[in-house]
Order: sequence, then structure tokens, then C-alpha cells
Amino acid sequence: MVEKPKAVVLLSGGLDSTTVMAIAHKKEYDLYPLTVIYGQRHQREIESAKAVAEHYGVADRHIIVEVDSRLFKGSSLTENLEVPSDGVMDPNIIPNTYVPGRNTLLLSHALSYAESIGASFICYGANALDYSGYPDCRPQFVDAYQNLINMATKQTTAGNYLKLEAPLMHMTKAEISAEGLSLEAPLNLTWSCYKGGETPCGVCDSCRLRAKGFDEIGKSDPALA
Amino acid sequence: MVEKPKAVVLLSGGLDSTTVMAIAHKKEYDLYPLTVIYGQRHQREIESAKAVAEHYGVADRHIIVEVDSRLFKGSSLTENLEVPSDGVMDPNIIPNTYVPGRNTLLLSHALSYAESIGASFICYGANALDYSGYPDCRPQFVDAYQNLINMATKQTTAGNYLKLEAPLMHMTKAEISAEGLSLEAPLNLTWSCYKGGETPCGVCDSCRLRAKGFDEIGKSDPALA
Repeated sequence: MVEKPKAVVLLSGGLDSTTVMAIAHKKEYDLYPLTVIYGQRHQREIESAKAVAEHYGVADRHIIVEVDSRLFKGSSLTENLEVPSDGVMDPNIIPNTYVPGRNTLLLSHALSYAESIGASFICYGANALDYSGYPDCRPQFVDAYQNLINMATKQTTAGNYLKLEAPLMHMTKAEISAEGLSLEAPLNLTWSCYKGGETPCGVCDSCRLRAKGFDEIGKSDPALA
Repeated sequence: MVEKPKAVVLLSGGLDSTTVMAIAHKKEYDLYPLTVIYGQRHQREIESAKAVAEHYGVADRHIIVEVDSRLFKGSSLTENLEVPSDGVMDPNIIPNTYVPGRNTLLLSHALSYAESIGASFICYGANALDYSGYPDCRPQFVDAYQNLINMATKQTTAGNYLKLEAPLMHMTKAEISAEGLSLEAPLNLTWSCYKGGETPCGVCDSCRLRAKGFDEIGKSDPALA
């Protein structure tokens, strides 16, 4: 029996990363979910991440790590600033939900873990269509990170690949929702809202983008059922 | 009065990073030392890092963060494996003191912190001459990381630079020791040995490289006085 290739999946517990789990599962990767707590103001999405890992039968190897929140300043996701709720914005203005260097730091945790376990893939839910204009969600960023991986590790410099996959990069939120539903990803367990609370706020960028996605495919959001 | 440019300095507490502090201090950067604990088997070097920050009068802004050591496997610096002591090795074989993806992860902490405080520099003591063959100490790695920085942040994509400086890259250990002494870096406070204990072991790669440096310039190591 051929061993499945190992994949570290960055799992936030939202719609996108859960769909990435479903895609990696369909590709028959051996899933190693990694969740990074970086001082988000709420922990609701961490609970979602745990539930998604459980759904895929890999809760026992789901690693949840914490990053010191003193590294991050000026973001409404980590500090007591107003989360924008006035609709998805001018694409030239990066909103205050941007967390400095966050995705680089998430991926760098994934990189160490991936090399430690001999993984062939890091899977990451970046998306550059229906998104908030973050620089670290664009294809140029993914290319630059792949280039870094190729230079940075014993594994890659010895000629063994470690590929950064961002399968949602060129999908609209509607396409992501449709993909998640069609792969039977446990979207009912996910949480996308930037705020905490019992139910999603419905007005932050993340809620609006998610609702727009389901609207466009004429389906209801399983998490709101 | 012109404000000094801010610099995040990765400070391990060893000879190299302390010399980098001295160089950044000489350049009149405003120093923000950052120390990352990544499950090293000993904490001796953390104490050195604190003493060095104190020496430069920036102890109050010295941030010490911890990375979850479950991310790292297979290194003698984080697990109970034998640290090599048989001399600096075949340059084609990376020794077991390599920590998977470590420098990428250290720099990624520095990147978030640098962007958070609006720093213009990240200073890093990588060295590719008298070193242990680690892929993430080479100029190609630094170039790839700089390229990533340029793509990754709000600061850089808005046209404000954030430069990764590795001033020791092309220096021999002798040149680094001489530079540290000439800039009056507090080398007496530093710790380079891969092992813990009261005094440096004298036989690990790091001790051997350090001793060789001071030998070549005919000086005694202030930390051994």
C-alpha cells in the first residue's frame, strides 16, 4: 500500500479553510490540521476548527498553537477597534482587519511543522477574488512564499519538494461555497464572522462576503440553519 | 530632531546577534530586540539576550516570545539527541542541530512586529562562512525572504520599505569577533554553546566556531574570562 502524502492544512475554522480541508481530503492527502491563535478577540473560530478536525477524524493530530499577540498592533481583529461593517470597500484600501504579517507567520508555523513530519504539501485558503485586499492573500505572495520554501529548508534544498497549495486562490466566494457543498465539507460547523458572539453579525466584511457567496449559488448557508 | 529609524533585531544572546545589536546601534537605529524561545533545551541564552538588551538600555521594550515546540522534530537543539562534538563537519551534510524552518519562523515573528511598530529594518545575524551549513543562513535565503517581505505587508506594498539586513553574512567568525570587540559589544554577556550548563562545553560546533574566531585574531573570548 502506497503511503498517502502528508499535508499540513492551515485550518482557521472558517468557510475557506474548511473547504481546503475537503479538497485535500478528496486528493487523499494525509491531513495534519494546524490552527494558530494570534490574539483574535474571540475564540469562536477555534471551536469551529476543532469540530472540523474531528469531522475528518484527525482531531488527535490537530495542533493548536498560540502566537504572542504583542507582535500585532493596529488591527481590529486583535485590538479593541471598530470592525468595519459598511460593505466591502475600495479595493485600494486595506481595511483595519488586516493583521501585520499574519499570513507569513501562519505559513511559517506550517513550514516548520511540515518539514518536521516530512509533509509534501502545505494547504492554505488564500483567495484573491472576493477578499479584503490583504497583500498576503494574493498569488504574488504565494509565489514568493513558495520561492522562500525552496531556499529555506533541509528538505527542499536536498531536492524533496514541499509545495504550497492555495486551491481557492482564483475562485469566487460563490465557487468556494459550491465546492464546499459539493465535497460535503462540514460547513455547518464553520465560523467566518470577524466578531464573536452567539451568531454571526451579518455585517462585517467576512459575513458579507460569505452571504454573497451562498446567495449567488442560490443555497442557504448551512451554518445559519 | 530627526527620528531614528526603528529596527527589530533578532537577539538570541549569542556572539553573532549581539554583534548585530552593536552594528545596528552604531548605525543609530532605534533598537527593538526580539527573542524567540523555540523549545531550546536550555534557557541559558535567553538570560544572555536579556543582559544584552539591558546593556543597550532597551530592556523595557525587549520582547521575548515563545513558539510551540511541537512544531519542531528531529533536532538536537529541541529534543534529546546527541549534539555533535566531533568538529565542524562535511559542508554537504547538515547536522542534527538544524531546526526545521527555524529562521523562517524567527523572521516571520520579526516581520509582524516590525510592521506593527513601523520599523524600517529587521536585523539578523545569519552567516554563511563559518557556519553549520543550514539552508536558512545563506544569502539566497535572505534574498528570498526580502522578496517575500516586499509582497507580504501593507507597509511594503504601499511603497514603504522594510529591509532585511544580515550584516554578518559574508564575515568569517574571526571578523565577527573583531567587529564585536571593536564596537564594544558586550560579548562577555553572550552565550553560544548549544548545550546548557555553567560553562560552555567547548566541543559543540558553535563553541568550536566561536573559539576559532577568537583564536584567529589572537584575542581571548570575553565570555571565558
